Amino acid sequence: MKNIAVILSGCGVYDGSEIQEAVLTLLAIDQQGASYRCFAPNIAQHHVINHLTGEVSAAESRNVLVEAARIGRGDVEDIVELDEKEFDAIIFVGGFGAAKNLSNFALCNIEDNDTFQVNEQVLTAAKSFANVEKPAGFMCIAPAMLPLIYPEGIKGTIGKDNATANLITAKGLTHIDCTVTDIVIDETYKVVTTPAYMLAESISEAAVGINKLVKYVIALCK
Amino acid sequence: MKNIAVILSGCGVYDGSEIQEAVLTLLAIDQQGASYRCFAPNIAQHHVINHLTGEVSAAESRNVLVEAARIGRGDVEDIVELDEKEFDAIIFVGGFGAAKNLSNFALCNIEDNDTFQVNEQVLTAAKSFANVEKPAGFMCIAPAMLPLIYPEGIKGTIGKDNATANLITAKGLTHIDCTVTDIVIDETYKVVTTPAYMLAESISEAAVGINKLVKYVIALCK
Repeated sequence: MKNIAVILSGCGVYDGSEIQEAVLTLLAIDQQGASYRCFAPNIAQHHVINHLTGEVSAAESRNVLVEAARIGRGDVEDIVELDEKEFDAIIFVGGFGAAKNLSNFALCNIEDNDTFQVNEQVLTAAKSFANVEKPAGFMCIAPAMLPLIYPEGIKGTIGKDNATANLITAKGLTHIDCTVTDIVIDETYKVVTTPAYMLAESISEAAVGINKLVKYVIALCK
Repeated sequence: MKNIAVILSGCGVYDGSEIQEAVLTLLAIDQQGASYRCFAPNIAQHHVINHLTGEVSAAESRNVLVEAARIGRGDVEDIVELDEKEFDAIIFVGGFGAAKNLSNFALCNIEDNDTFQVNEQVLTAAKSFANVEKPAGFMCIAPAMLPLIYPEGIKGTIGKDNATANLITAKGLTHIDCTVTDIVIDETYKVVTTPAYMLAESISEAAVGINKLVKYVIALCK
């Protein structure tokens, strides 16, 4: 049975993991006959967004690992405990948490003053899979992190948002436009990407691309 | 196209809606070609549970409607705005939120001093569907509310937990044992129930029962 590490970044599209993407990923892994364990960094969220109003809830602070545990029904582990040897592949779920907590993609200004970074613990975990050529999946905005993990020229997609794609392309991603129901595959580095809620207009649309991503990531496992 | 009202109770199994059940419900509705809108009461959660440790987070307070918006990507409405005329059916997701926020089932002591109540706004919404014989689905622990909504003898299941079933039976539910991949149907009152995470040991197990529930609820729509 293939075992997949799923990386979460909180619980909620605007300040953490996109919940529907996360659940669809776990469902697809389980339905494919593989197993999973969830991980997240034990760090403060960048901020808390009231998902009803869209506004920052300035008085609140939440922890990425603690909130991610809501999605995993309590079963989530600190990403510093992630041992690549126990897994066949790694999958990064989307949501703004990938661009605010796992990295600072949504917060830095790549064009004017490039301070784009991936959290060091997250980078170590991601690179531990890349270094031994184990497959990886990235969905939604998570592929923004690819050029900081893989060599220049790594192929991936965040859908069809040119402005966002150009920022990541400047960092070394070879961006390939992709529809919500499809995936982009980098066969050299064994990286699979799909737009998910960068483009999805319904949950079942998101599910089609995520199912394909999970199937292909598992197919790439040795 | 059938339109389903989905009732949430927060965001996280221990103090709100069971996230996986909620997402699986939305997915099943969308995949069946029906549409949905999510609702929750605009009230304080009973408490906040740290889902990593399982302990009460006494310093925190959260709002049921605001947290439910995380599951719905912002799209959730106050349950007092729910107009039964705009919908063909109603579905209640599980999680402790159904027994701590939508009702006090997990907090009251039915055996010794019966103060079991359903939140008045929630009760009004549920009864507005029952009164006009529109179908309803209840999963996980949510069927505990059935005897306070429907006449004595209403049939339903919370799985195979005898102690819990006996408490609800004392209130007037005719409890029928049920496996996680099956549903119980009350044809008289058009109520469909499934155990979901009262019994599920995996997300795809939960999905089988929830898919059946959603399909049958839609089939019961006029």
